[in-house]
Amino acid sequence: MGEFMTQTQQRPAGAGPSTGVPEGRRPIATQRDGGPGPLDGPEAAVILERARASVEPELRAAVASLPASMRRVVRYHFGWEHPDGSPATGSAGKAIRPALVLTAAGALGGPAARTAAVRAAVAVELVHNFTLLHDDVMDRDATRRHRPTAWTVFGDADAILAGDALQALALRLLAEDPHPASSAAVARLATCVVELCAGQHADTEMERRGPGEVGLDEVLAMAEAKTGALLGCACALGALYAGAADDDVAALDAFGREAGLAFQLIDDVIGIWGDPSHTGKPAGADLTARKKSLPVVAALTSGGPAAAELAALYASPHDKESEEDIARTALAVERAGGRDWAQAQAADRMARAMQELARAVPDPEEAGGLLALAEFVTRRST
Amino acid sequence: MGEFMTQTQQRPAGAGPSTGVPEGRRPIATQRDGGPGPLDGPEAAVILERARASVEPELRAAVASLPASMRRVVRYHFGWEHPDGSPATGSAGKAIRPALVLTAAGALGGPAARTAAVRAAVAVELVHNFTLLHDDVMDRDATRRHRPTAWTVFGDADAILAGDALQALALRLLAEDPHPASSAAVARLATCVVELCAGQHADTEMERRGPGEVGLDEVLAMAEAKTGALLGCACALGALYAGAADDDVAALDAFGREAGLAFQLIDDVIGIWGDPSHTGKPAGADLTARKKSLPVVAALTSGGPAAAELAALYASPHDKESEEDIARTALAVERAGGRDWAQAQAADRMARAMQELARAVPDPEEAGGLLALAEFVTRRST
Repeated sequence: MGEFMTQTQQRPAGAGPSTGVPEGRRPIATQRDGGPGPLDGPEAAVILERARASVEPELRAAVASLPASMRRVVRYHFGWEHPDGSPATGSAGKAIRPALVLTAAGALGGPAARTAAVRAAVAVELVHNFTLLHDDVMDRDATRRHRPTAWTVFGDADAILAGDALQALALRLLAEDPHPASSAAVARLATCVVELCAGQHADTEMERRGPGEVGLDEVLAMAEAKTGALLGCACALGALYAGAADDDVAALDAFGREAGLAFQLIDDVIGIWGDPSHTGKPAGADLTARKKSLPVVAALTSGGPAAAELAALYASPHDKESEEDIARTALAVERAGGRDWAQAQAADRMARAMQELARAVPDPEEAGGLLALAEFVTRRST
Repeated sequence: MGEFMTQTQQRPAGAGPSTGVPEGRRPIATQRDGGPGPLDGPEAAVILERARASVEPELRAAVASLPASMRRVVRYHFGWEHPDGSPATGSAGKAIRPALVLTAAGALGGPAARTAAVRAAVAVELVHNFTLLHDDVMDRDATRRHRPTAWTVFGDADAILAGDALQALALRLLAEDPHPASSAAVARLATCVVELCAGQHADTEMERRGPGEVGLDEVLAMAEAKTGALLGCACALGALYAGAADDDVAALDAFGREAGLAFQLIDDVIGIWGDPSHTGKPAGADLTARKKSLPVVAALTSGGPAAAELAALYASPHDKESEEDIARTALAVERAGGRDWAQAQAADRMARAMQELARAVPDPEEAGGLLALAEFVTRRST
């Protein structure tokens, strides 16, 4: 099961960075559907662009405050520099999480709250990137955002240290913020870090188990910890910075979590049935890797002959599989109900996300930005 | 160059844990000199024992709040549990840093400040142990506190995640503290984490260089970042929790840093000339490992024939060195002035530490506890 930014970054539209337009700058809806939809297109793109513009100067200033040894690794990781320290024009990502912080703050507290929440948005982005640096070391992932991962360039030790420093920097930034929500925000973000660690642990631990030894509930719990928690925390921090009541902070956290789970479900569906010309990955990449993604575990645990066939296919060696083998595996997941389940679950999660959002932000106009972001991360053609 | 707790733990007195008294519980002065001195003996032992008693319940409660997967690794690392989760009676260390927090708070704010600073003391101990977990992974160290390191038992990924979670837990604990110093303490401890990372980076980076390619200033700067920074931060946090003025906070930080450097200098001297029956390590262990410790770099950069001889010896292979070879190397360090320099530097650093302490805490009686702790960590016979 992949991490949010990894997967969206690793499944870009056909055109690569050589077009001069960083792929992270183009909304997925555009990439996948050929044009923006009514909700997820232009508005989400504008919100994300605006968030990047608000956050990037503070993000760069925070990174500039690091000692040279860590700064180098972090700037490379963000795509701002080549390994030799010369400037690069790569994208640091779509800034979904900072956009959630700022948009949540704006929805509950208006433009002043949005402005006040910039540091919190930077802190969330720093935490996200700390986890990416460490996850890549642990998972031995060699590529991120179309470039070699930091540990492959600088070694494990420097990637671990850069991640450690980013976590510290994120929490320091919040603690130094004179805003009254500062302490609550530190505590909430630190709590989220612990949950992210538990999610990453569960992910690697489950991948080591046999295909029949993983339950659907625990994969869902893992996905919530690994992907949902930080999206929820981003929204909750925005609410805290808007001075929202505890109930509304909790509702926004739940909104982000549910949207994050919906995203993960759709992302897992794409990992099996996504069009290679859109995803930039071979067909059924997650199946070849024998990933225990959500549709696969749903299929494996469904009982019946298709589940048994899938279990047998997953137990077979996968080093030289043909396209036909992959297609057969994908068909087994589908026959066992994995695809339908994932799509129904995603729809259900999005419905719950909308309910939570409506509770905290009843005015549809004020909720529009968060709605557009949620649609943006989950509206992806399969 | 070793990390503070590692080295004191790895160089115990002759009697091992089989005596039933964990070695970390006996003051080094007693171990080395056969009896407590006027300043560093009973008083330091009492202060440390009292600090452990104050801190351990909160420390265990904080660790108990972690998800099961991380809790297991952390409890093993602290010596509270065996790998299978059954209770162990190992010592979690001498708790020097928590004792510095509490004693600094007491010196500047009396008993109420000492009581209020318990959470800060726990946070410092958590940060210290986060860095130990990660340093062991990076340095591939297989033993800590006479037991296999966490990564050798649970794997790199779980050790990295446990460390990440401990950092978050430490900063969360401080952020949730209703004490007015809470935010300043989070910011200060997080800043210290970044410095610790820079120190660890410098250490591994310098160990990779040739013996002639390391300057004395940079080894000193590394030792200050890696060892001095957290001792300084511990004292500064105590001062913050006592409501001390900025000047006094800064003076206590400097006191801890200078004492930490003095400790490292003495520890490096012991790593070369320490009595194996006291250190529990073979004679000249740091020389066999070709460590660029402070006396060695001082010798290498001194010029003259002994420095050249040492450089040649350090450039030779060290896999099957005789005791004679080691003795010759130690003699070269001594002839080139490395031993005298380190001892003079240590004395100088302790003098500076005392000056800083006297500035912030002029009353000798109130300063007595911090003085005893500083003597305790540095008073080790060579």
